Amino acid sequence: MVKELRVGLLGTKFMGRAHSNAYGQVAKFFETPLVPVLWKACARDEAALVEFAERWGWQHATTDWRELVVDPEVELVDVGTPNHLHAKPALAALAAGKHVACEKPLAGTLEDARAMRDAAADAAGQTFVWFNYRRCPAIATAYRFVREGRLGRIYHVRARYLQNWGGPETPGSWRFRKELAGSGAHGDLNAHSIDLARFLTGDEIAEVHGAVARTFHPERPTEDGGTMKSDVDDALAFLATFESGTLGTFEASRVAGPHENANSIELNGELGSVRFDFENMNVLEFHDAADGPREGGWRRIQCTTANAHPFVANWWPPGHGLGYEHGFVNQVADMLRVLGGEEPEVPLADFADAYETQRVLAAALVAAEERRAVRLSTIE
Amino acid sequence: MVKELRVGLLGTKFMGRAHSNAYGQVAKFFETPLVPVLWKACARDEAALVEFAERWGWQHATTDWRELVVDPEVELVDVGTPNHLHAKPALAALAAGKHVACEKPLAGTLEDARAMRDAAADAAGQTFVWFNYRRCPAIATAYRFVREGRLGRIYHVRARYLQNWGGPETPGSWRFRKELAGSGAHGDLNAHSIDLARFLTGDEIAEVHGAVARTFHPERPTEDGGTMKSDVDDALAFLATFESGTLGTFEASRVAGPHENANSIELNGELGSVRFDFENMNVLEFHDAADGPREGGWRRIQCTTANAHPFVANWWPPGHGLGYEHGFVNQVADMLRVLGGEEPEVPLADFADAYETQRVLAAALVAAEERRAVRLSTIE
Amino acid sequence: MVKELRVGLLGTKFMGRAHSNAYGQVAKFFETPLVPVLWKACARDEAALVEFAERWGWQHATTDWRELVVDPEVELVDVGTPNHLHAKPALAALAAGKHVACEKPLAGTLEDARAMRDAAADAAGQTFVWFNYRRCPAIATAYRFVREGRLGRIYHVRARYLQNWGGPETPGSWRFRKELAGSGAHGDLNAHSIDLARFLTGDEIAEVHGAVARTFHPERPTEDGGTMKSDVDDALAFLATFESGTLGTFEASRVAGPHENANSIELNGELGSVRFDFENMNVLEFHDAADGPREGGWRRIQCTTANAHPFVANWWPPGHGLGYEHGFVNQVADMLRVLGGEEPEVPLADFADAYETQRVLAAALVAAEERRAVRLSTIE
Amino acid sequence: MVKELRVGLLGTKFMGRAHSNAYGQVAKFFETPLVPVLWKACARDEAALVEFAERWGWQHATTDWRELVVDPEVELVDVGTPNHLHAKPALAALAAGKHVACEKPLAGTLEDARAMRDAAADAAGQTFVWFNYRRCPAIATAYRFVREGRLGRIYHVRARYLQNWGGPETPGSWRFRKELAGSGAHGDLNAHSIDLARFLTGDEIAEVHGAVARTFHPERPTEDGGTMKSDVDDALAFLATFESGTLGTFEASRVAGPHENANSIELNGELGSVRFDFENMNVLEFHDAADGPREGGWRRIQCTTANAHPFVANWWPPGHGLGYEHGFVNQVADMLRVLGGEEPEVPLADFADAYETQRVLAAALVAAEERRAVRLSTIE
Repeated sequence: MVKELRVGLLGTKFMGRAHSNAYGQVAKFFETPLVPVLWKACARDEAALVEFAERWGWQHATTDWRELVVDPEVELVDVGTPNHLHAKPALAALAAGKHVACEKPLAGTLEDARAMRDAAADAAGQTFVWFNYRRCPAIATAYRFVREGRLGRIYHVRARYLQNWGGPETPGSWRFRKELAGSGAHGDLNAHSIDLARFLTGDEIAEVHGAVARTFHPERPTEDGGTMKSDVDDALAFLATFESGTLGTFEASRVAGPHENANSIELNGELGSVRFDFENMNVLEFHDAADGPREGGWRRIQCTTANAHPFVANWWPPGHGLGYEHGFVNQVADMLRVLGGEEPEVPLADFADAYETQRVLAAALVAAEERRAVRLSTIE
Repeated sequence: MVKELRVGLLGTKFMGRAHSNAYGQVAKFFETPLVPVLWKACARDEAALVEFAERWGWQHATTDWRELVVDPEVELVDVGTPNHLHAKPALAALAAGKHVACEKPLAGTLEDARAMRDAAADAAGQTFVWFNYRRCPAIATAYRFVREGRLGRIYHVRARYLQNWGGPETPGSWRFRKELAGSGAHGDLNAHSIDLARFLTGDEIAEVHGAVARTFHPERPTEDGGTMKSDVDDALAFLATFESGTLGTFEASRVAGPHENANSIELNGELGSVRFDFENMNVLEFHDAADGPREGGWRRIQCTTANAHPFVANWWPPGHGLGYEHGFVNQVADMLRVLGGEEPEVPLADFADAYETQRVLAAALVAAEERRAVRLSTIE
Repeated sequence: MVKELRVGLLGTKFMGRAHSNAYGQVAKFFETPLVPVLWKACARDEAALVEFAERWGWQHATTDWRELVVDPEVELVDVGTPNHLHAKPALAALAAGKHVACEKPLAGTLEDARAMRDAAADAAGQTFVWFNYRRCPAIATAYRFVREGRLGRIYHVRARYLQNWGGPETPGSWRFRKELAGSGAHGDLNAHSIDLARFLTGDEIAEVHGAVARTFHPERPTEDGGTMKSDVDDALAFLATFESGTLGTFEASRVAGPHENANSIELNGELGSVRFDFENMNVLEFHDAADGPREGGWRRIQCTTANAHPFVANWWPPGHGLGYEHGFVNQVADMLRVLGGEEPEVPLADFADAYETQRVLAAALVAAEERRAVRLSTIE
Repeated sequence: MVKELRVGLLGTKFMGRAHSNAYGQVAKFFETPLVPVLWKACARDEAALVEFAERWGWQHATTDWRELVVDPEVELVDVGTPNHLHAKPALAALAAGKHVACEKPLAGTLEDARAMRDAAADAAGQTFVWFNYRRCPAIATAYRFVREGRLGRIYHVRARYLQNWGGPETPGSWRFRKELAGSGAHGDLNAHSIDLARFLTGDEIAEVHGAVARTFHPERPTEDGGTMKSDVDDALAFLATFESGTLGTFEASRVAGPHENANSIELNGELGSVRFDFENMNVLEFHDAADGPREGGWRRIQCTTANAHPFVANWWPPGHGLGYEHGFVNQVADMLRVLGGEEPEVPLADFADAYETQRVLAAALVAAEERRAVRLSTIE
């Protein structure tokens, strides 16, 4: 008799859909010690919520998040709301003894994030953060290569997350207001890059050595024909060193030409290198320095072989690639394993882990806001 | 009757070979108002010099650079010596009324560079700096796209020059001592990247917002079985903004895994993007935003069509790619045009231009040496 | 009130899973005039069938396909069994007035295929064949480009479907016996390539000009430690011309080195070209000859933009790629549209259409078996 | 004291330039037992010839090839004329005791080619054919991998040589008349592909199993505003098997969309695979099956490392790629080695070898002209 886990979901937009799909699909592809029950969904727009719940198979619906987080039937609260709305429901759910799965970044502010970390430390429930890219088979393969020592000492981490939807014609919204969004491309995209960098290396960032934020379009049209101010970064780059001495470069942008969703990261080590670009998500490139210059080079690994690449055995035969949403299904599988006392395929981020990522986001913002620079006019 | 230009060359190593080849090949492929005469070569090792001069067709040889730079027959002095040996002969040649072509970077120190720029401003001779990559057909094509407005406002410059020869087993040499080399990967590689960024955008860097240098291997073996200290950067990354507001990221490394000689640069603009990687030097990738998402994407342009791509008409039929050395031949062709009163295919760097690149190198070193950082330990 | 369509499924292996997933997912992502009900599944192994039905949500199960195809509740019979087992149930289902969706290729033999086509012509039910690759957004985009005249007159079709699982250590099975499988790589892989070629061009193959089949491993190990004969092709290549004069080259292999599942096709026309490789399934490469050599080249289109690329609007925001299984979900959506009286996104193959593909498969086998060749020993 | 070899050159067009450059460059980069002297050049247009000879450094010039081939000073006769003009001067030169280097394909007809092979067999002089692509470092590396057993038994050879200059607007010339050119894309491009296939595998083609030639544009404009008939192939594809059983597919085209000069070849073997595309000529892709699916994939080898990749040590430091013309310089170096009694870097083609390639060209033409086909109208 399989054990069930009743889930309550907050948020029914993009992430609400992705999470709902994951809960619905997991039992078809994975054997897990628990199976999720789509118990109750929550959003503010009642009509849309009812349609959403019916479509995805949520058994109940509520427009009151406070009711959901204390619903005695709910065992896992999934927070899929905008960043500045993570902390309150997450804290309430932890206080009510629930497990909590929260979208990334952990929170809209470092203060919120700290409170969430602290609450998690004392809570009975377990916590998870939806850093979904960890569960692309290619990324999980890279994680294992690093753990097996295939890269040796790591010299370079080079992370760029480039998108292109932020041109001047893009209408303003809450995403372009710092008080609501916290930051622009930085919190949205660098959050993923920092998590991947920490996850893959197993190392922590020690210092941020400079950062530049650019708001290329400080004024944006509104949908009613007016304009609004934007005060968040359209792009933000920063430099960092890790505790081991690794040099890290990070760049996030919403105005990066042809790049629709290029979440890319490269690690160069003494013994090997890996690189990944989500634009071709089923591929990991790997270089084994032991191959030597005569017959070595980037190896283009199709990470689509069961038992060779994590998560693949649960899906399709070799060579049949996965898509974006599979990272979420894979994450639900691993959360269910952990809650059922088993090991995940690769480690999940909890609130304490995600708080470390949030600290790096904050440090980069501090560096960007200090605007310390060497002016060329001083160099003669 | 074609006019001749007698050349005197200093330095007979890698650059001496590349320059000699260029002088020897140019008249076979180009019609120029002047043709070079390989008049006199100079190096310290007399036996090697004689062999070199004979191989490449230099009519005379001398071990005394001071003699060469004042030789009344010499019209163009080519300085192909190590960086810290650029200034003296260049200044002497300018003082003697010669034209001077100097290897990049302009000098080993900013002071030397400034003196060279100032001397050039007052001199009768013309000056050139061997930023050879400007004359890859793909780069020259990108230059023209920018000038024609195909990129519009430029948001991003993303330059990386990655090599891999600097692992721990690489023996120490003068290149690893700051007092001789000035810097490590920075001066060697970022010099090219900064020049390309300035050349392509036509914009100047206004501020450097942070820099990190890493000496991963502070001790290196020597060829006699001992060890020596290395005090130059194995890698250096920095962030910059241009006067127009463009955000620039730069990274140079000698320990970057599989990258043998990956001189790469990408520009993202409002109307279009370009990117180039010397590992596939005959290709320019171009994105025209006007293509729209339905049918747009990186276009892989083979820059090998006569009359469509600069310099190609002088070489082979369409599709027959060029190699590394062609940039040097193309540069000699353009120098001869300029000295003969004609227009170059694309602009050449003179000392004043190269001094601006040197200032950026210096500003990044200042930023790296200040070591201002946001410590993660201060972020809680 | 949404109309339902009750489905009966034959086969619970790879295709049974892919089809079940598609029926389960379609209503979550698409608005269709009918929604499928997973009514009854059929397979021979009862224990496995029960587990399968429960996992995927089939409401009923039977081990007797004859019962399923006449079940009055069933409206659509889905034939997901091995090739030589397509004809009987499909014919029975058509005779019972059902709609039929059949896996590709249409049948194990041309005779069976002809009978199926003829029965479909006279039947009340509609027929469909699971040529799933038509519904990759990249392929559907290419289809539209051709229809819009972007390629002009088509000179070349170049199709290769390369896999690598057929090395000498691969155990024998029914797949390696001609009487059961019909052919080897040919029927399995060239079936897809021929369908794509016909679908994309809208043209029919007129002649097959030569074919070679190779059985590299005529003896294979069996799982009980013995050996068996293999008499099917491990690879088969053939040449064809289309009615319009287009030259087509086709190649299928199971022993093609690193290619796990490289279903690739390229079309070169007077005005433009497209190419696709399933190893990077979210990308279509397109060349518009009107770009000219100066700024033209393969455009790498990320076919992941809603409303720009077919099917994408139903899934995720721009840049979030799809995987293998989405082609099946997309196909179910289009079958439901057709059965509900609406237009599909791009045309579906019915039995008459799939029979044309089968004829080409047969013609290539005839050519291969004739073994007409010009022996080099006759050329002096 | 270095020994000299006096060269006489026939033809001053594209190949005349490429060969002249090679003779001029070789001694600058290679140490060879002989050094070439550019003794005498021959062409019909005297004015152009004089300009050519001066530019490239030919000491003498003549418009009479019969004089050149018997000039007692000439030791090596280089035949760089159009295909149908190879045989006469080559035979005369051999009769005069000269060494002969002939452009590819060996001759315009099989009869001519046979006569040349027979004459070479009895001659005192040595013969060479300019299959220049053998001397791309990437191809020479692939050659060695095969010889070292890295590919094991070879299942597939897949060769395509695609160009795009033959659209309907391209003016007619002798190249489009069979009586002068012999064939179209076939002799020009498949000649290279067949040579590479034979060179890399070390195997001979045993049978041609079908061929299709297409003349897409049977009428072409002439430069005087009229039209002319074209009776050569714009594209020709054929299928072959090698003596060992390897399956080969070959395709040549002049109307292949964006492909300017895509000379590509792939070999799939039991133990490994290689592929090459001249559009990125410094790269060899290699797959070592021993890497396994978990960490294996196409390795992108930059064939630019001295001592690791053939010919590279003679040119530039690691990572500084070569271009089209270097294959010719490398070939001259190897011809000089052979004539001086040393071993070439990789084997050169002589007339006997090139005759084997010509036989395959002829067999494919026979197959194409037989037009044996399975008509789809016969398959029901």
